[in-house]
Amino acid sequence: MTGLSLPAPYPWPEGRGAAFCFSVDVDAHSPWLWANRSSMPRGLSHLEQRNFGPRLGLPRIAELLLRHNIHGSFFVPAVVAEEYPDILPSLLDGGHEVGLHGYFHELAGEITDEEFTQVLEASVELFERQTGARPKGFRSPAWEMTAHMLAEVRRLGFYDSSLMGLDTPYSINGVTEVPVQWSTDDAIFFKFLGGAGNDRWPPLDTNQVLAAWEEEFSAIHRFGGLFMLTVHDWISGRAPRIAMLERFLATVTGHADVWITTAGELATHHHTHVSKRDDLTVNVPASLLQHPVWRGQ
Amino acid sequence: MTGLSLPAPYPWPEGRGAAFCFSVDVDAHSPWLWANRSSMPRGLSHLEQRNFGPRLGLPRIAELLLRHNIHGSFFVPAVVAEEYPDILPSLLDGGHEVGLHGYFHELAGEITDEEFTQVLEASVELFERQTGARPKGFRSPAWEMTAHMLAEVRRLGFYDSSLMGLDTPYSINGVTEVPVQWSTDDAIFFKFLGGAGNDRWPPLDTNQVLAAWEEEFSAIHRFGGLFMLTVHDWISGRAPRIAMLERFLATVTGHADVWITTAGELATHHHTHVSKRDDLTVNVPASLLQHPVWRGQ
Amino acid sequence: MTGLSLPAPYPWPEGRGAAFCFSVDVDAHSPWLWANRSSMPRGLSHLEQRNFGPRLGLPRIAELLLRHNIHGSFFVPAVVAEEYPDILPSLLDGGHEVGLHGYFHELAGEITDEEFTQVLEASVELFERQTGARPKGFRSPAWEMTAHMLAEVRRLGFYDSSLMGLDTPYSINGVTEVPVQWSTDDAIFFKFLGGAGNDRWPPLDTNQVLAAWEEEFSAIHRFGGLFMLTVHDWISGRAPRIAMLERFLATVTGHADVWITTAGELATHHHTHVSKRDDLTVNVPASLLQHPVWRGQ
Amino acid sequence: MTGLSLPAPYPWPEGRGAAFCFSVDVDAHSPWLWANRSSMPRGLSHLEQRNFGPRLGLPRIAELLLRHNIHGSFFVPAVVAEEYPDILPSLLDGGHEVGLHGYFHELAGEITDEEFTQVLEASVELFERQTGARPKGFRSPAWEMTAHMLAEVRRLGFYDSSLMGLDTPYSINGVTEVPVQWSTDDAIFFKFLGGAGNDRWPPLDTNQVLAAWEEEFSAIHRFGGLFMLTVHDWISGRAPRIAMLERFLATVTGHADVWITTAGELATHHHTHVSKRDDLTVNVPASLLQHPVWRGQ
Repeated sequence: MTGLSLPAPYPWPEGRGAAFCFSVDVDAHSPWLWANRSSMPRGLSHLEQRNFGPRLGLPRIAELLLRHNIHGSFFVPAVVAEEYPDILPSLLDGGHEVGLHGYFHELAGEITDEEFTQVLEASVELFERQTGARPKGFRSPAWEMTAHMLAEVRRLGFYDSSLMGLDTPYSINGVTEVPVQWSTDDAIFFKFLGGAGNDRWPPLDTNQVLAAWEEEFSAIHRFGGLFMLTVHDWISGRAPRIAMLERFLATVTGHADVWITTAGELATHHHTHVSKRDDLTVNVPASLLQHPVWRGQ
Repeated sequence: MTGLSLPAPYPWPEGRGAAFCFSVDVDAHSPWLWANRSSMPRGLSHLEQRNFGPRLGLPRIAELLLRHNIHGSFFVPAVVAEEYPDILPSLLDGGHEVGLHGYFHELAGEITDEEFTQVLEASVELFERQTGARPKGFRSPAWEMTAHMLAEVRRLGFYDSSLMGLDTPYSINGVTEVPVQWSTDDAIFFKFLGGAGNDRWPPLDTNQVLAAWEEEFSAIHRFGGLFMLTVHDWISGRAPRIAMLERFLATVTGHADVWITTAGELATHHHTHVSKRDDLTVNVPASLLQHPVWRGQ
Repeated sequence: MTGLSLPAPYPWPEGRGAAFCFSVDVDAHSPWLWANRSSMPRGLSHLEQRNFGPRLGLPRIAELLLRHNIHGSFFVPAVVAEEYPDILPSLLDGGHEVGLHGYFHELAGEITDEEFTQVLEASVELFERQTGARPKGFRSPAWEMTAHMLAEVRRLGFYDSSLMGLDTPYSINGVTEVPVQWSTDDAIFFKFLGGAGNDRWPPLDTNQVLAAWEEEFSAIHRFGGLFMLTVHDWISGRAPRIAMLERFLATVTGHADVWITTAGELATHHHTHVSKRDDLTVNVPASLLQHPVWRGQ
Repeated sequence: MTGLSLPAPYPWPEGRGAAFCFSVDVDAHSPWLWANRSSMPRGLSHLEQRNFGPRLGLPRIAELLLRHNIHGSFFVPAVVAEEYPDILPSLLDGGHEVGLHGYFHELAGEITDEEFTQVLEASVELFERQTGARPKGFRSPAWEMTAHMLAEVRRLGFYDSSLMGLDTPYSINGVTEVPVQWSTDDAIFFKFLGGAGNDRWPPLDTNQVLAAWEEEFSAIHRFGGLFMLTVHDWISGRAPRIAMLERFLATVTGHADVWITTAGELATHHHTHVSKRDDLTVNVPASLLQHPVWRGQ
C-alpha cells in the first residue's frame, strides 16, 4: 500500500473469491436506555418500537437464517441479554456466534477510559455466566473506537468489528479487525423513530436498499472483498425487510465461490493465515497547530 | 415470545390471512394552532396549506372510500370538529368510524397529566354532543403515549391506536392496542410546508411511496399482520396522492383473504377473541445509573 | 365546501379540462443579498452559483419557451431588474408576463408592515419605469403572505400567486389567488449551494423529478386543477434541467384540453367569470389559550 | 450575455462538441485534521474511513484511469502529499496532472487572508520539492473562494477550479476558471461518516447517481458544456463506486466528439484561445442596507 499500485487479492481460504458475513446488532431498547440514562422519559413510543425487536424481530431473523442455513454473528449489549436471558443460549444453540456490544450500548464519546474497561469486563462476565463460554469478538456501539478501546480489546484477546479502514480483514494497533461498512448497515436506511427532530430522512423502501446491496455485493465480489451485512432486531425484523433480506440472501447464496461465515471465523482466518499483511497502526498528532507550516516556520 | 421461536399466526376472524385498515388523521390546521397556541404567527402560508384539507382533501378521501366501498377510521381533533361541525356527522353517515385525536392536537410531551385528562374528557363530550354517540377509540396526536395516557384511555374504556410494539393487535397495560406504523403513514413521506428550517427532506413522488407500500402490503400479507394505513386530509387529499391511493386500494381489495375493516372492529375482535395473547406491560426503570454494573458494584 | 361533498369542477374557459402555467421566479442573487444585507460575506461560491441565472440560465429558459410557443409568467425582484435592466423589456418583447417578487427578495417574516408597503411601492415604480406598464400580479418571496400583505396587494389591484389553499384559482380576503404548489417547484428538489449546514438534502436527479411531475400533471388533469410550475433562473437553467423541462413540456402540450396560459390570464378569468366561487377569508384567533376547554371552562 | 439571447457555442478545440474532465480531490484525512486542528478527538472511526483512501481507494482510481487511458487532474492537500510522499510523483509518472488543494484542507471561511497566502506558498513549495515542477492549478478546499484568494491565485499564475458561474471555462477577476459543479461531485451523494449529527442524508446507491450523471452528461453534451467530474479517494475508491465509474466512463469514452482532458489543458485552451469571452468581474456591495429604496429614499 504505497504509491498507486494495487495490492494482491486478499487470500480467502480454499480459493474463495470473496466473503459474506450476516451480522446482527441486537440493540433492542438499549440505546434508548443509554440516551435517557439519567432520567427516563414519559413517552413510550420509541420504547415500544424497539421492544418489537426481542418480541418478534429477532425470532424472525433467526428463522430466516435457519431456513438459509447461515450462521450469523449476533452482537448483544449485556443489558439486553440480562433482560432477555434466553437470547444468548438460544443463539448458540442455533449455531450462531454471539459477541460483545457494550453493556448499556454506552457510546465511546460519552464514557471515560475507566468506565469502558469496567463495563467491558462486566459484559464479558455476564456472557460467560449465561453461556458458559467466553465470546471471541467485540463490536463497539455506534461503531466508534478509541486507542484505549483497541488496547483493552487486545488485552482481553478479542477481535474487533467496528472500523472501516479496509474492505477485507486487517490488523490495527495489534487487534484483528473484521471491518464493517455503513452502506451495508440497515439502520442508516430504515431507522425511523418519529418525534420532533429525531429523524433526518424518511425510511427508504426495501427495493431501493435491495438494489444498492445487490450492486455492492456484485462489486465486492469482483474486488475480492468482505461484504459485512449488519442488521438490527427492531429494524430488519419488520415484515418488508425480512422479505427483502430473503431475496438478498438468494443472491448471496447463489455464488458458490463466496465464503459465507461468521465474524469470528473471519478473524481467526486473518489472525492465523494473513496476519503479516495489512498490519496497521494509527498515529494521531496532538494538534495540527504545531505543524511548522501552520506556525509560519 | 421467549427465546427465538416464532409465535403462532395471529388469529384473524373467518380464516382471513391478514388485515387492512384505512385510517385518516384529520389534523387540518390543528397542529398549527397548537404549535402557535400562545401567539399566532402573521404568516398564512402554512395555515392555507392545512386549510386545503377540510376544503377539498377530506371530501376527496371520502369519495375515494365510497367508490371502493371501504369504511375508514377517522381520528379527528375536537377543535377541527368544532370549527367544521359537519365532519363528524357526515363521516358517520358514510358508515365510517370516528375516533378521538386530542382536542387541540396537543402533544404528549407538552402537557401535564392533568391537562391530558381535562382535554380528553372535553373531546369525548364534544363528540357525544355532535354525534349522539360515544367514540370507541383514541389515537394520540403524533403517536406518543405515556403510562398516564394509557391509564386514562383504559379508565374511559377506549382502545388505543398509537403504538408500534407489534404488527398485529395486542394489549398494553390493559389497553387494547391497534398498532400504527411510520412506514405506512403518508406524512413522513409527503409532508412539506416550506419556510426556513421546517422540512428535513423533500416530498417523495407518489410512485416511490406506492412501490414501498405495495412491497409492505405483500410482506404484511405473507406474515399475517395488520397493514394500518394512515393518511391526512391536507396531505393525501392532493390530486396525485388520491390517484396513488386509488392504485394502492386496487391492490388491497384484490386480495380476497385480507380483512378490510376499521380500527374499532379490529379492537373489538382482539378484545373479544384474542385478548389472552400478547398481553404486555411496559416497565421503565427510573434511571439506568442505578444499575449495579454502572455503579461499579 | 361543507361536509364531505365534492365541489363541481372548476369552470375553465372554452370547456378546457385543466390549466397549466409556466412561472419563473427570477431570483438570481437577490436572496443572497437579502440574507447578507447587513454585511456581505467574503465567499463568492454562492454568489457565482446564482449569477449563472442571469448569465445563462434565463436565456436558456426563454429559448425553451420560445421553441414551445409558451408564454410564461416571470416574477422578478426589483433589485434583479435594476442590475439587469434588459430583463423586463426583453421578457415583455417575448410575449411573457412580468410580475412583482419583492424588491430585495425580502422575507415576509423579517420585515415590518411599513417596510413591506414601502418596498412594494418602490418595486411597482421600478417596473413602470423600465417597462412603461404596470404589472398585474404579485408573488411573495418564499411564498409567505400576511393579512397586511394581502390587504396591500388588494389596495394596489394586483392578483396574488403565493398561497396553496386550493388547486384552482380562488379568492382570499378579497384578493384573487392563483395558487402555487411546493411539489411543482424546482427549488425544493434541485437547489443545492454547498457550504457547511446549508443543504438538508442532495439535489434529486432529473428523472426522479420528471416522473413526479408527470404523475402530478396526470392527476391534476384528471381532477380538473391548475398545474402551476415554478422554476428558477439559476437552478433550472442548468443543462440537465432544461433537457428535463423539454420532455415535460412535450407531455403538457400533448394534451389539447389543457389551458396553457399565464398567471395573469388565470387571475383575470377567475376575477371576471368565477369570482362568486371559493371566496374565502382567513381568520386567525389571537391565542388558542383563550379557548374555554383549554382554560378548563 | 445581455438580455435573453443565448451566447454562441463555446469554441472547443478541433471542432469538439463538449468536454469532460476526471478530477480527484485527494482529501484523505486532511479535512478531519483541519476540523480537529486544535485538539484531536479520541475516536478513530472517521479517521479510519478516510485512511481507506490512500490505502486502497487512490490505487483503484489510478488503475481505473489507466485502463481507460484517461489522464486525470488530482488536487492534493499538501499535508496529504507530505504524509504519503509517493503520491505526487506516482501520479505524474502516470501522466496525470497534480494541482493544489490547500495545505491542511483549510476552509476559506476559517482563515485570514494572510494565513491563506502563507499556506498557499508553502503548498507550492512542497509540490516543487516533491515533483521538481510547479503546479498549474488551484482548487479550493470545499470550493469556496474570496476576492483575496482569486487575487493570490492570479498573482502566482495559477488557474482556478472552484467556482460555478458558467458551465464552460471563463475568467473571473482575471483568473481563468475551470468550473466545477455540485451535481457531478461524488461527495454530496455518497459521503457518509456516521456519528451523531454528522450526516444529513444516507448515501445514495450507485445506480441512482449513475442515472443522474448519464442524464447530465447527455445534457452537457447537447449544450456544448464541460462535464467536470470530481471524486474523492476515500469515497469513490470503495468497490461499488469504482464499478459505477467504470460504467460511466464507458458512456463518456463512447462519444468521439467529447474532449477528454485535464483541468490544466482546459485552462490553457481557454487562456490561449478564448480569453476574450466571458471575462467577468465580481463586485459585491458592502451592504444592501445602503440601497436608497431600503432607506426609504
